Amino acid sequence: MRNLTMLMDFYELTMANGYFVKGYKDTWAVFDMFYRKNPDNGGYVICAGLEQLIEYVQNMHFSEDDIKYLESKKIFDKGFLDYLRDFHFTGTIEAVPEGTVVYPNTPLVTVTAPVIEAQLMETMLLICINFQSLIATKASRICLAAGDNVIMEFGARRAQGPDAAIYGARACYIGGVNATATAIADINYGVPAIGTMAHSWIQFFPSEYESFKAYAEVFPDTCTLLIDTYDILNSGLPNAIRVAHEVLEPMGKRLKGVRIDSGDLAYFSKKIRKKLDEEGLSDCKIVVSNSVDEYLIDSLNRQGAKINSYGVGERMITSKSDPVFGGVYKLAAVEDTTGSVNGDEKLFIPKIKISENVEKITNPGKKKLWRIYSKETGYGLADMLTLSDEVIDGDGVTPFVDESKPWKKMRFKNVIAKPLQVKIFENGKLVYDIPKLEEIRELVKYQLENTVWQEEQRFANPHAHYLDLSEKLYKIKTDLLSLSESSDQ
Amino acid sequence: MRNLTMLMDFYELTMANGYFVKGYKDTWAVFDMFYRKNPDNGGYVICAGLEQLIEYVQNMHFSEDDIKYLESKKIFDKGFLDYLRDFHFTGTIEAVPEGTVVYPNTPLVTVTAPVIEAQLMETMLLICINFQSLIATKASRICLAAGDNVIMEFGARRAQGPDAAIYGARACYIGGVNATATAIADINYGVPAIGTMAHSWIQFFPSEYESFKAYAEVFPDTCTLLIDTYDILNSGLPNAIRVAHEVLEPMGKRLKGVRIDSGDLAYFSKKIRKKLDEEGLSDCKIVVSNSVDEYLIDSLNRQGAKINSYGVGERMITSKSDPVFGGVYKLAAVEDTTGSVNGDEKLFIPKIKISENVEKITNPGKKKLWRIYSKETGYGLADMLTLSDEVIDGDGVTPFVDESKPWKKMRFKNVIAKPLQVKIFENGKLVYDIPKLEEIRELVKYQLENTVWQEEQRFANPHAHYLDLSEKLYKIKTDLLSLSESSDQ
Repeated sequence: MRNLTMLMDFYELTMANGYFVKGYKDTWAVFDMFYRKNPDNGGYVICAGLEQLIEYVQNMHFSEDDIKYLESKKIFDKGFLDYLRDFHFTGTIEAVPEGTVVYPNTPLVTVTAPVIEAQLMETMLLICINFQSLIATKASRICLAAGDNVIMEFGARRAQGPDAAIYGARACYIGGVNATATAIADINYGVPAIGTMAHSWIQFFPSEYESFKAYAEVFPDTCTLLIDTYDILNSGLPNAIRVAHEVLEPMGKRLKGVRIDSGDLAYFSKKIRKKLDEEGLSDCKIVVSNSVDEYLIDSLNRQGAKINSYGVGERMITSKSDPVFGGVYKLAAVEDTTGSVNGDEKLFIPKIKISENVEKITNPGKKKLWRIYSKETGYGLADMLTLSDEVIDGDGVTPFVDESKPWKKMRFKNVIAKPLQVKIFENGKLVYDIPKLEEIRELVKYQLENTVWQEEQRFANPHAHYLDLSEKLYKIKTDLLSLSESSDQ
Repeated sequence: MRNLTMLMDFYELTMANGYFVKGYKDTWAVFDMFYRKNPDNGGYVICAGLEQLIEYVQNMHFSEDDIKYLESKKIFDKGFLDYLRDFHFTGTIEAVPEGTVVYPNTPLVTVTAPVIEAQLMETMLLICINFQSLIATKASRICLAAGDNVIMEFGARRAQGPDAAIYGARACYIGGVNATATAIADINYGVPAIGTMAHSWIQFFPSEYESFKAYAEVFPDTCTLLIDTYDILNSGLPNAIRVAHEVLEPMGKRLKGVRIDSGDLAYFSKKIRKKLDEEGLSDCKIVVSNSVDEYLIDSLNRQGAKINSYGVGERMITSKSDPVFGGVYKLAAVEDTTGSVNGDEKLFIPKIKISENVEKITNPGKKKLWRIYSKETGYGLADMLTLSDEVIDGDGVTPFVDESKPWKKMRFKNVIAKPLQVKIFENGKLVYDIPKLEEIRELVKYQLENTVWQEEQRFANPHAHYLDLSEKLYKIKTDLLSLSESSDQ
């Protein structure tokens, strides 16, 4: 396994050194990872990437070369470097399971650990969750648009590096995609890999017909032909039909599909469908693969395109229309080392970040994230943040605050409140059964079909999921904000 | 080293199996990698990623697990799987060196090899060149906008996976960035890593002043303070100034900088500059780091912002405004196994891909790429494609064709013509001295200052670099096109 421990921002190391030198080595802190805005102005996000974060945390260690590198900078304390030599994670991580539908400003991952440990994992934690959540979300939108049609992920060549191709294929599968073109994603994660031919296959042979014939002879059971190398309607399609009749049918085989990768997809798909049907090839699928995303699929559907299957490349693997998932990792509380202790429980002082941009103000304290489901419909009505030791009563007892109208007393009735985070690491030990990729994918499907409003799934102006705060948490937040009030604009 | 051999599209494997079964194992082919459009509608691209491609090609091999995986698909020929067991690259690769300024539709990498070998490397070749060229280009644009100001790459957390963070930092350095936040990029590639503190450092302490004081005490020589956690002008800046005077100056040290990561960067930078100057801290730099790219820097310059240094994150590491580099890998020629041979020289039959989209038509044949420089100014006037055995005469002798006005006879005068590709692998052996990263970076700087027109470097509507074809190549292309003429729209 690659040692990616040093894939961290240099400031994690300077801060860690500072905490160490100033005597805070054993002071615990709480960090929350959350994001502020759904990609593509959508209504939800599919959380993903936790398995890779777990691998990173389990493997975190500093090699002698890493230490030497830090020494060469001449700014790090010797005691700190010794501390790094024995470094391993000893804290607790709670997280929303992969495949959970999530919303802005809710903690997807919460790390409670000695401050240095919690700080040093920031960069990789964000890389893991940000990228795969971005891609799983994009894939889920594309699959929603495609309905019952098949979506295949064809993006590796346009992915932002090898990891993006591999983890991107994994995330796309979580989001609902049926298959990938990337062989290694099949080997590593069991994402079914598929593929037939590129234009080069057709060009390689003396004629298009000969190339199709050769392919059909070698792969009679899985023959899908790419028909746009020279001329779709006058060359590619007639040659494919000829191969179906003259090569495959005499073997008792069928032409599985034809693919086009250029031209007007709506226009050509209708022409192709008609011709195939006339030729008794109505079981032959039409596959398209040029600049496809959820918006184009929507448009093709409206135009009555006759497409069975989409190969989706660059626009999914990079989330081209919105390629950054802005997850952040913020300090929420610091251990009160002067205060009294309830048994083993540490006491934490809530911390807030205020910022010049109001949307960047954080929710302070050691918190708990709940989802409130209607008992009647099963739908998720809202998410709710409480202090970590609060319990939500589902029958109208627990009051809460909607920050956009804090003057209004609110209570839920006839609901079930479920905590969303589960324990992943406890005192440095992995206590979580990592689910199979198929289970994660099923979880996504189940939620989108049963617990997430259609209104949150539409592309244009979706319903914004509610996030409420418990009265106690709201009081802590407003108290911290008023403490720092002052202004000079 | 990771074995990324199987990071390939599954269709590379089905095609390879097809070539093998049909008896083309020893037939050579020529593939060109090129792209069609500069990112961000810019005037040029910085080619990058070759070093990682070389590593991939050198390491390409199929493990027993890979073979077992393929066997399990039950569509691959046994002889083909045996062939893969002994696979290693035996062909020739020519490529434009990293850091070269390049333009659309010119071959950046040309692979001449047995068709299976050339085909199997397609996906990783594209991943390596596409991503790093994209990011090096973006970085170079951002550095152009910044002029003499410092650009630091802060993007790891928003990168599309670990490789994107690491190779992205490398590519940004090639493009001209001064430093990275990503420690492992310093260890692996010598990109200088820098960093000081996050908001969490400030929040961790009982007060902002105490956090600044602690940092200054631990890092008196490299103290840059983040001043926007609570309130820039009423808290952050006064506290930083107090630390400069009360903590650093008594030690004979200076406050190196202040950083803001939110708020109106133009407005605050001017206010901060004025106050720092009044306090005798005119050597203290102002660093900003919120949603920066070339367009924002241009705008801040116009507003007279007082900024010394930019931390550039997500908009550079993902090339957010245009996150896909559409490089492709196309068959250009196939060995003529029936034809006669000139000594050791193989004969190649030119191949073309036509497509329904005119811009997707390829340039056929085994070619050579030249850059034509003015003897007078040293500027690159045009690029030119010839057949591989043609030689360009720089004094008006060689006629050529501009495809947009093919009726016009054109000749260059008073120019020097230099081939752009160099030999990387020859008969499977690496014959190229891989340059140091610093040399690649210097090459970029040299070209942008000395050989690339300013008119190609502007952001709005830049001059489109000319690409001409030799008369011979143009004739082959038009002959192949007319061969396939037919239409039914």
